[in-house]
Amino acid sequence: MELNIALLAGDGIGPEVIDQAVKVCDAVAKKYDHKINWTSALTGAAAIDAVGEPYPNETHEICTNADAVLFGAIGHPRFDNDPSAKVRPEQGLLKMRQKLGLFANVRPTFTFPSLIDKSPLKQERIEGTDLVFLRELTSGIYFGKRGREDNGETAYDTCTYTREEVKRLAKKGFEMAMARNKKLCCVDKANVLESSRLWRETVQAMEKDYPEVEVSYEFVDAVAMRLVQWPNSYDVLITENLFGDILTDEASVISGSMGLMPSASLGEKTSLFEPIHGSYPQAAGKDIANPLATVLSAAMMFETAFGLQEEAQAIKNVVDKSLEEGIVTEDLAGDAKAYKTSEVGDWLVKHI
Amino acid sequence: MELNIALLAGDGIGPEVIDQAVKVCDAVAKKYDHKINWTSALTGAAAIDAVGEPYPNETHEICTNADAVLFGAIGHPRFDNDPSAKVRPEQGLLKMRQKLGLFANVRPTFTFPSLIDKSPLKQERIEGTDLVFLRELTSGIYFGKRGREDNGETAYDTCTYTREEVKRLAKKGFEMAMARNKKLCCVDKANVLESSRLWRETVQAMEKDYPEVEVSYEFVDAVAMRLVQWPNSYDVLITENLFGDILTDEASVISGSMGLMPSASLGEKTSLFEPIHGSYPQAAGKDIANPLATVLSAAMMFETAFGLQEEAQAIKNVVDKSLEEGIVTEDLAGDAKAYKTSEVGDWLVKHI
Ligand SMILES: CC(C)[C@H](C(=O)O)[C@@H](O)C(=O)O
Ligand SMILES: CC(C)[C@H](C(=O)O)[C@@H](O)C(=O)O
Repeated sequence: MELNIALLAGDGIGPEVIDQAVKVCDAVAKKYDHKINWTSALTGAAAIDAVGEPYPNETHEICTNADAVLFGAIGHPRFDNDPSAKVRPEQGLLKMRQKLGLFANVRPTFTFPSLIDKSPLKQERIEGTDLVFLRELTSGIYFGKRGREDNGETAYDTCTYTREEVKRLAKKGFEMAMARNKKLCCVDKANVLESSRLWRETVQAMEKDYPEVEVSYEFVDAVAMRLVQWPNSYDVLITENLFGDILTDEASVISGSMGLMPSASLGEKTSLFEPIHGSYPQAAGKDIANPLATVLSAAMMFETAFGLQEEAQAIKNVVDKSLEEGIVTEDLAGDAKAYKTSEVGDWLVKHI
Repeated sequence: MELNIALLAGDGIGPEVIDQAVKVCDAVAKKYDHKINWTSALTGAAAIDAVGEPYPNETHEICTNADAVLFGAIGHPRFDNDPSAKVRPEQGLLKMRQKLGLFANVRPTFTFPSLIDKSPLKQERIEGTDLVFLRELTSGIYFGKRGREDNGETAYDTCTYTREEVKRLAKKGFEMAMARNKKLCCVDKANVLESSRLWRETVQAMEKDYPEVEVSYEFVDAVAMRLVQWPNSYDVLITENLFGDILTDEASVISGSMGLMPSASLGEKTSLFEPIHGSYPQAAGKDIANPLATVLSAAMMFETAFGLQEEAQAIKNVVDKSLEEGIVTEDLAGDAKAYKTSEVGDWLVKHI
């Protein structure tokens, strides 16, 4: 099979971790007789520096023509704490999500037995946790009308959803629940927000099409609590853009394996795969960042974008093996030897 | 001193826990030679049943004429999962907040040494946690324009903030930080939302008036993570209404003492004190609910509304003592004897 993949390394540790994922993908491709055509493109602060735009048209062209996009991370401290900055790396991210139509962000949270003691939660709370969030990614308050009034003294943002947008996301949620443990939680704030009431009534109307799925409706504040108390009580959760932003990040730290969590953003035509960690500028260029979240994002890509289960499993297996054998970067090494980013990549390639 | 207090018991376990707080307040008043005039009023589902309105005008009159309001809990399952319900208990809550001008919700999270093993977090993560959230409570997306368009197919909500609203809340935050550990965290989503950029620039401009306070700015998603990872790294946090709703609830479960957490809602003229737990309808009428959060809310009332530190401390001390001696309701009893709600109240009164 010929796989056309756009490669967006981005900022900070992005390029380093992406390098390892590319090596691993190439090794898998070789083993299973595929051919990968990688096309690199600029994004984030790197793109602002080069062409004054965080998501240049050329990058968009490359992504549109690819079968899938593998993404590193974007963001640079230079743009933080400056509310007046005109161009920001984050704008590139939002523009990319919208222009590529990546409406469903898939964020799993699961545990690795060998890392469970890294969790801030007690073992009995976190054990067995295996949940996945589906966050709506191209609408809501992220993309609504916003601005200032009264000479800048008043600011507003608008959260808008259409029934079609909710349906499209919820459909993926129901399907995912069917393929997993048949439990779906719709997270909203229907006791206050009109957009949430649209979410809830739309999902309620879809229940009859998936009679096997047990659906629950929970307020976002209640979910923020239960995620810390009983994360293993959840299976699939669906939610709107902003709630998803907050809750998926909250969920990501409970497993203790934040540095390992992959994600996918699905669109009608193309899809994008990226580690959930950020650009971690303090570590950039030091060859110390953990590449496993990016490598596992590549595994998600094989599975989700290309339907190549075996290849995905091969990657997951070699990652498990590296963890068991302690071939890990300093964030996981504890008192044992810490390997470099590139050394972990090399080891994975060798053992694929 | 003569204390005029409006008493809003509300729904579910509200009346039972309020009863205990009233007993404790009366005992403290007797000891310190104060006179409390209690005036009860209807609210929540109870008020809907009686007069068709969750926050009747008569109740508002009573609250307005009081020096402080002591509140139980509202909410009834009969109104949940019914997006079409015309009148809901929650509307009463929102109307009350707005009509009484309760713009600052104060939500402390602290630990009780004797309860630390109830926390879902590992002891080393939670130890020493003593933070307080100031949540803006009368503006933002809770009170902005909302509605439907396209024959109900599109729903929208608006988040609006004025610079004055932000200043008013932030001022309380800076003052509270000065009285505590001089650390203030402004929680926003300034990389996306215009209203958040107004928050950030307003707080930044106030920094010079409080040179001793160390101010940090963090995105809401990052705070949702760090609250689970390192809750003891925070002191005072300020945030807008919806973020505050989610994060204060998340923060409330980390200590393991959720059933004990009090809160205050401060206005220009009056203030309201309530436990953070809900109406817990399953337990209503069974005399099993934990009254300590309401009792500690009464302590906050003595301190904050009336400036009576010693009286507040007397309540906190007797609560500590009851915990040490295991005079606790079933939620905290474990394998030991569980006391009834009213028995705990009686014990507190006796030992004041
Ligand atoms: C960088 C930011 C705009 C972005 C978001 O809020 O969506 C990030 O937090 C994320 O979740 O991918
Ligand atoms: C009941 C609901 C409207 C309310 C809110 O969201 O403010 C509650 O969750 C709270 O935090 O007091």
